[in-house]
Amino acid sequence: MSEYETLSVTQSEGVATVSLDRPDKANALNMRMWDEIGQAFRALDKEESCRVVILEGNGKHFCAGIDLMDFSQVMMSPEKCEARKRDKLRNLILHLQSCLTAIEDCRKPVLAAIQGACVGGGIDMVAACDMRYASSSAYFEIKEIDIGMTADVGTLQRLPYIIPDGIMRELSYTGRRVDSEEAATIGLINRVFADEAALKDGVETLARQIAAKSPLAIRGTKEMIKYTRDHSVADGLNYIATWNAAMLMSADLQEAMAARMQKREPKFKD
Amino acid sequence: MSEYETLSVTQSEGVATVSLDRPDKANALNMRMWDEIGQAFRALDKEESCRVVILEGNGKHFCAGIDLMDFSQVMMSPEKCEARKRDKLRNLILHLQSCLTAIEDCRKPVLAAIQGACVGGGIDMVAACDMRYASSSAYFEIKEIDIGMTADVGTLQRLPYIIPDGIMRELSYTGRRVDSEEAATIGLINRVFADEAALKDGVETLARQIAAKSPLAIRGTKEMIKYTRDHSVADGLNYIATWNAAMLMSADLQEAMAARMQKREPKFKD
Amino acid sequence: MSEYETLSVTQSEGVATVSLDRPDKANALNMRMWDEIGQAFRALDKEESCRVVILEGNGKHFCAGIDLMDFSQVMMSPEKCEARKRDKLRNLILHLQSCLTAIEDCRKPVLAAIQGACVGGGIDMVAACDMRYASSSAYFEIKEIDIGMTADVGTLQRLPYIIPDGIMRELSYTGRRVDSEEAATIGLINRVFADEAALKDGVETLARQIAAKSPLAIRGTKEMIKYTRDHSVADGLNYIATWNAAMLMSADLQEAMAARMQKREPKFKD
Amino acid sequence: MSEYETLSVTQSEGVATVSLDRPDKANALNMRMWDEIGQAFRALDKEESCRVVILEGNGKHFCAGIDLMDFSQVMMSPEKCEARKRDKLRNLILHLQSCLTAIEDCRKPVLAAIQGACVGGGIDMVAACDMRYASSSAYFEIKEIDIGMTADVGTLQRLPYIIPDGIMRELSYTGRRVDSEEAATIGLINRVFADEAALKDGVETLARQIAAKSPLAIRGTKEMIKYTRDHSVADGLNYIATWNAAMLMSADLQEAMAARMQKREPKFKD
Amino acid sequence: MSEYETLSVTQSEGVATVSLDRPDKANALNMRMWDEIGQAFRALDKEESCRVVILEGNGKHFCAGIDLMDFSQVMMSPEKCEARKRDKLRNLILHLQSCLTAIEDCRKPVLAAIQGACVGGGIDMVAACDMRYASSSAYFEIKEIDIGMTADVGTLQRLPYIIPDGIMRELSYTGRRVDSEEAATIGLINRVFADEAALKDGVETLARQIAAKSPLAIRGTKEMIKYTRDHSVADGLNYIATWNAAMLMSADLQEAMAARMQKREPKFKD
Amino acid sequence: MSEYETLSVTQSEGVATVSLDRPDKANALNMRMWDEIGQAFRALDKEESCRVVILEGNGKHFCAGIDLMDFSQVMMSPEKCEARKRDKLRNLILHLQSCLTAIEDCRKPVLAAIQGACVGGGIDMVAACDMRYASSSAYFEIKEIDIGMTADVGTLQRLPYIIPDGIMRELSYTGRRVDSEEAATIGLINRVFADEAALKDGVETLARQIAAKSPLAIRGTKEMIKYTRDHSVADGLNYIATWNAAMLMSADLQEAMAARMQKREPKFKD
Repeated sequence: MSEYETLSVTQSEGVATVSLDRPDKANALNMRMWDEIGQAFRALDKEESCRVVILEGNGKHFCAGIDLMDFSQVMMSPEKCEARKRDKLRNLILHLQSCLTAIEDCRKPVLAAIQGACVGGGIDMVAACDMRYASSSAYFEIKEIDIGMTADVGTLQRLPYIIPDGIMRELSYTGRRVDSEEAATIGLINRVFADEAALKDGVETLARQIAAKSPLAIRGTKEMIKYTRDHSVADGLNYIATWNAAMLMSADLQEAMAARMQKREPKFKD
Repeated sequence: MSEYETLSVTQSEGVATVSLDRPDKANALNMRMWDEIGQAFRALDKEESCRVVILEGNGKHFCAGIDLMDFSQVMMSPEKCEARKRDKLRNLILHLQSCLTAIEDCRKPVLAAIQGACVGGGIDMVAACDMRYASSSAYFEIKEIDIGMTADVGTLQRLPYIIPDGIMRELSYTGRRVDSEEAATIGLINRVFADEAALKDGVETLARQIAAKSPLAIRGTKEMIKYTRDHSVADGLNYIATWNAAMLMSADLQEAMAARMQKREPKFKD
Repeated sequence: MSEYETLSVTQSEGVATVSLDRPDKANALNMRMWDEIGQAFRALDKEESCRVVILEGNGKHFCAGIDLMDFSQVMMSPEKCEARKRDKLRNLILHLQSCLTAIEDCRKPVLAAIQGACVGGGIDMVAACDMRYASSSAYFEIKEIDIGMTADVGTLQRLPYIIPDGIMRELSYTGRRVDSEEAATIGLINRVFADEAALKDGVETLARQIAAKSPLAIRGTKEMIKYTRDHSVADGLNYIATWNAAMLMSADLQEAMAARMQKREPKFKD
Repeated sequence: MSEYETLSVTQSEGVATVSLDRPDKANALNMRMWDEIGQAFRALDKEESCRVVILEGNGKHFCAGIDLMDFSQVMMSPEKCEARKRDKLRNLILHLQSCLTAIEDCRKPVLAAIQGACVGGGIDMVAACDMRYASSSAYFEIKEIDIGMTADVGTLQRLPYIIPDGIMRELSYTGRRVDSEEAATIGLINRVFADEAALKDGVETLARQIAAKSPLAIRGTKEMIKYTRDHSVADGLNYIATWNAAMLMSADLQEAMAARMQKREPKFKD
Repeated sequence: MSEYETLSVTQSEGVATVSLDRPDKANALNMRMWDEIGQAFRALDKEESCRVVILEGNGKHFCAGIDLMDFSQVMMSPEKCEARKRDKLRNLILHLQSCLTAIEDCRKPVLAAIQGACVGGGIDMVAACDMRYASSSAYFEIKEIDIGMTADVGTLQRLPYIIPDGIMRELSYTGRRVDSEEAATIGLINRVFADEAALKDGVETLARQIAAKSPLAIRGTKEMIKYTRDHSVADGLNYIATWNAAMLMSADLQEAMAARMQKREPKFKD
Repeated sequence: MSEYETLSVTQSEGVATVSLDRPDKANALNMRMWDEIGQAFRALDKEESCRVVILEGNGKHFCAGIDLMDFSQVMMSPEKCEARKRDKLRNLILHLQSCLTAIEDCRKPVLAAIQGACVGGGIDMVAACDMRYASSSAYFEIKEIDIGMTADVGTLQRLPYIIPDGIMRELSYTGRRVDSEEAATIGLINRVFADEAALKDGVETLARQIAAKSPLAIRGTKEMIKYTRDHSVADGLNYIATWNAAMLMSADLQEAMAARMQKREPKFKD
C-alpha cells in the first residue's frame, strides 16, 4: 500500500496506520503531504478490510505545522490581476481543507497518536480526527497567530466543538503552548500516556477493540455524531430513524445476538 | 395517578417522581414502558401542580437498556415487501424517539437520579433529561455498539451537547464502562453522591428548591436553553425578547419583588 | 476618552480598559450604563489604535446585575393598549441586548477581569466577552430566576456554549452561587488569581501579549470563532477560505516572516 | 368513519373526502372544527387504505375563516396573571396550528377543492394542502388584517412558498379579494374549473390518478418536497439517498417493472 | 422633516414619501445618498405617525444605479497593506448594504414606485422594498455584470426570492433589459400603470389603504413574512405563536371588532 | 477534448457544448453516461478558456431518463447482508447525485437546450443547470412516479426552487406531461423556440453574450445565487462582502471602466 512519498501507510488486521514521514522536517506539511493525506484517507475510506485508522508522526514530533518555505513558493504566482490571484489562493485553501476533511469524511474512526510538537497545521489535522491521545512529551500551539495569519484549514472551525470556548479563544489569540496534562484537562486529548511506547501500545489496543465491533454500526455512529454537530436534534433524530430503516436489520445484528446467546465473541464481516 | 404498569408515578407538593418499575428486569425498556414514559411525561407537562420531575429506577439498577426479547418480537413482521417492512421499522423508531422526546418537551425540569446500570437505551433516556445525578454505584455504557447497531433513540443526537466530543466518540465506538467519578469529570452527571440514600436525598432537596421558584420563569428558562441548542445566538436573542414581551410582566415578578421588599420568601402560584 | 458617566475608559498602548464605575451601587446596570456599554464598545471597535479590551468593575464587586429600581421605572409606561405596551417592552429588551452584543461584535478580544459579585446581568455581560478571569473573591449567580423572570439579555443564549449543559441547567434553575474555583472547573472562567492585584496583573499581561500580535490575524480569528458557533463546519471552512483570499497576503504576514528570519520580535501596524 | 360533528368524511376506493360541514355558517372554523380537522387527518394518515385526500367545503362557500364568536369565548379566561393568560393564549395558538399541520404531516397528498369564499383561516388551511383547485366562483382574502391581527395559523409561514413575494405582501397588507382567475395566475391554485360540478369532477379524476400510483413512492415524494422547503439542497440529497436505501427496493418497483414488460397497468398494494 | 441633501422626504397623514432627489444624475447613488437612505428609513421606522412609505425617484428615471465616479474615489485609499485595503473595502460594502437593509428593517411596508431606469444599485434598492409598482416607461437591468463586478448590495441575495430562478440567472448573467410588461409577468413588479400620473395615483391609493389598517397587525405581518424567508416553517409557526401571545390582545383588535358590530370603518391609533 | 463514449464535448471560443450522445437510446442515462457527465463538468470547471456551457442532446430527444436495464444490473449484487446491500445502494445514489451536482458546481453558467423528451433523470439533470430553453417539440415528465420510486437524483431537491409549489406537487404525484408552452408559463424553461434550429441558434447567441462578460463577475454571480438558495439573506450579504473584498478590485473592473470611457466593447481575459 505504500505509494506515498511523505507518508507511510501500513495495515495489520483491520487497523491501518498512517504515519507522517518527514521526520527530519518534524513532519512539516508540504504540498505533497497535504495531497497524500487526502489520497490516503480517501483510499482507506474505500478499503473494506480497513476498520480503524491510527494517525501518527514518525520521529520526535507529531507535526510542526505547515512548511512555510514550501507554502511561500506555492503562493507566489505570475498572475497580474489581483482578483485572479486571490481567486487562485481561495481555491488553494479550499484544496488544503479538502485534504483534511478527507480524515473526517473517512467512514472509519481515526485515532491520532501524538508525541512532541503538534502545532499550527498539526492541530488543524488532529481536530479532524475522531479522538486524540498523547504521550507526556506532547505539546500543542495554535501557531498561526504568530505568523500573522488567521488559521484557515480547520482549527477555528472544528476545535470550538472539542474544547471549552473560553480556552479556545485564549489559545488561538495567544498561541501559547499547552502541555499534555492541560490538553487532557481541557478535552483536547482523551488521555496522556507516560511515554511514546505506552502511547503506541495504548492506541493500538483501543484501535483493535474498535476494529472488532460491527463495521456497519461503527460507520453509522461516526456519521451520526458528525451529523449532530451540524444539525438540530430534531433533524438528527429523523435522520437516524431513516438510516436505521435501511441499516438496522443486518447480518451484524444477527451475529451479535447469536454470539450473545452462545456466550462467545461476535465476529463481523468487513 | 398510577395507571401505569411499568412505571410508578407519585407527587409530593410540586415534585413528581417517575420510577421505572420493572426491578426484576433491571428496568429494561419493553414496548409498554416506552409508551408509558411518553404518556407520563406528556401528562406531567399538562399537570399544573407539577413543577419539577425526578426520574429514577426502582431496584438495583437504573435501566438496563432496551429489552431485546421484546424488541425482536416487535420488529418481526409478516410484511413481505422489504420497503414496507422498513417503512414500518422507521415509524417504530420515530415512535420510540417521541417517547423520550416527551421528557425534553415536558416544560418542567427533569432530574435523573441514577444508581447501578445506566446502559444503552438508559443513556438515551437520561440524555433527554435536564440534569443527571448518580450514586457511586452507577455506571454507564453506550451498549448499542455491542449488539451491532447504531444507537437510534437520542444518545448520538443529545449526548454530544453534554459531554466533550473526543470522549463522546471513544465511548460510543467502544461501549466501555464509565463509572460515576469519570461521569462527573466529563460532565455526564452533575454530582456523585456517596450512596443511594444520599442520592435520593440530594436530588429531592434540589428538586424542592427548583419547585419553589416561579414556574413561569422556570419554563421560560428550559425553553430557551433547548432553543439555543438548535438555533443561532441571534435567533435566540430575538426569541427571548418576543417571549418576555408576553411573559415578563407577571404575578410572579410582582411577588418576587414584594417578597424581596418584605424580606420574606416568595410564594408562586402553579 | 472619558465622556461616560457610568464607565471609565482608558487606554495604554494597544490595551483599552473599560471599567464599570458605579462602585457604590456594586456597578448595578442602570439604563445609562447599558447605553454607555454599547457606545463604548462600538467606539473601541472603530478605534484603530485599540487592539484588546479589558472589561472590569471598580470597587468590591464586578457587577450586581440590573438595577431593579431603575428598570421598574423604565418599564412603567402610560400606554393603555396592552399590545403596544408589550411591543415597547420587546423593543426595550432588544435594545438592552444590542448593548451587550456590541461587546461580542467588537472586533478586538475582550477580557473580563472579575472580582466579588458577578450576578444576573453581570453574567449576561461576561458571556459576551471572549475570555473571563477572576480573583478568588469572585462568585457567580444566574440571579434572574430569583426575581421571577427568564434571563433575557444573553445568558441563556451564550452561556450554553461556554459551560457544560447539565451544569448550565442546574445553575439557571437554582440560581445557586458558584465560587471562582468551581467557575474554573466548569470553564466559566479560564483561571483564578489569588487576589485582585494578581488578577489585574495577570489579565494585563495577557492583554499586552495579544496586543502584540497581528491585529488583522486577531480580528479574523475572533470573527471565525463567532461564525463557527452559529454555522456548520462546511460553511465555516468556505467562509475562512474566502476571508483569507482577501486578508492572508498582508503586511503582517510579511513582517512576521521577516522577524522570524531576523530572529526578532515582529511589530505590527494598527 | 363519520364520528365527526363539523366534518363529514367518506372514502371511495383509495380516495378519502373530508368535507367541512357547517354550511349554514359558511364553514366557519369553531373550536370543534379545528380539533376535528386535526383528528381526521391524523386518522387518514394512519388509514392504510387511504391514498389521497380531497378537502372540500359543503354549501356555497369553502370556508369563511375563524368563527369570531367562538374564538372570543375561548380567549376569555378568568386567569388574573397577565403572563399566565398569555402563556395559555400561546398554547392555544400552537394547538390550532397543530390541527392544520396535521394536513401537511398526513403522508397522503391532500387536494383542496374550493368554491365561494376561502378567507382568513380558510387560507391558512389550504396553504397546508398539497394542491389547490377552484371553481370560477371562488375568491380569496387574507382577512386577518381587517380584524386587526397578524395571521397566526400558517398563512404567513406557508403561503410565501406558494405565491410570488411581492403579491404575498400586497395581499396580506391589504386583505383585498383575489378571484379564481388571478389565483391561478399567481400560483395560489393550479387550475380554475368552470363551475362546482366541473371542479368536483376534475379534482376527483386527479385524485384517482394519484391513488393508482405506488403509495410508497407518493409518500416519499411528499416527504421530500416538504423536506426541501426547510433544508439545504445538500441536506435534501443526502436525505433521499438514505431514504431510498431503505425504500427503493420494493414490491412496488417490481410491480411497476413487471407491468411495463407486460404492457398493463400496475396495481399497487396499500 | 427635510434635512436631506439627496432625498426629499414628506408625509401626508400616515403615508411618508421618500424621493430620490438627484434628477440631473438620474438619481445615481453617491455616498451621501446611500447614507441618507439608511438615515431616512431608520427615522421612519421610529416615527410613530408614519404607517406606510412610498419610495420614488424624482425626474425621468427612478435610479441609474451607483455613481461610479463617486464610488471610485471612495475606493481609492492611501493604505499600503493589501489586506488592510481589502478589510476597508469589506467594511464599506457592509455599510452600503446596511443602508438598504434599513428599508427591509423598517417596520412599515415600503412601496416602490418606478418610472424610467431602475438599474444596478436601483434594483438592489427595490429588492429591499415590500412591493414594486411601475409605469410603462420603466425598465430594469442588473447592470453590475457590465462593469465587471458581482452585484454586492442585495440583488443576488433578495431577488431570487422574488422572481423565478431561471429568469434570475439569465438576467444577472446577461444584464439584459426587462421592460415593465415582462417585469410584471415575472413578478418583479406587482402591476404596470399606464403612465407616471397613474402610477403615482395608484401607489398612493394603495398606500392609504394600508395606512388605514391596524399598525400593530401590519408590523407583525411584515415581521413574519421576513422571518419566513430565512427560517423553517416550524420555526415560523412557533415564532408567530409567541409573538401573538404578546400582541394579539390589543386595542386594535377591540376597535376592529367594535367597528364590525357598528358597521363602520375602524380607526386605529398610531 | 473527446475522450467520452456517451458524450460529445466541443468548444468554440469560450462556449463549450456538451451533447448527450446515445441518440438511438434517446440518450437514456447508463452508468457510463452518469460518470462521464460528472467528469465532463469537472473538467470544464477547471478549463480556463471555457466560460459558458451548453448542455444538449443529440437526436430527436433530449433525454429519456435513466436506462432501466442498465440500472437493474447495477443494483443487483451478490451481497447477502441486507444492510450492506442497502449501504451500497445508498453510496450508488450518492454517486449518481454527485455526477449531476458537478453541473451545479461548475463555476460557468450551464444552459440546457431541450427538444423532444426530457423525462425522469433528464429533469433531474436540467434542474441542476442554470437556465433551460426548449423547442416547441419538447415535453417534460417527472416519470419516476410511474416506475414506483421516489425521484432521488435532484428533481425533488432542486425543482421546488424553480417552479411554483402547487404545480411541483401535481407534476411529481401524477407524472403528467408538460409541453413547452406550459413549461415556459410555470418557469421551468425561460423561453420556447419555434423549432430546433431556432433553439440551437438562440441558445448559442445567449451563450456567446454571457461568454463576453467578465468571467470573474460571472463566477461570483453563479456562486452567490447558489449560496442564497441555501442560506439566510443576512448570511448571503456577509458572504458577498467578504467575497468582493477579495474579488472586486480586478483587471476586469478596470477593463470595463476603460472600455466605457473609450466607448468600446470590453475584452476580458479568461
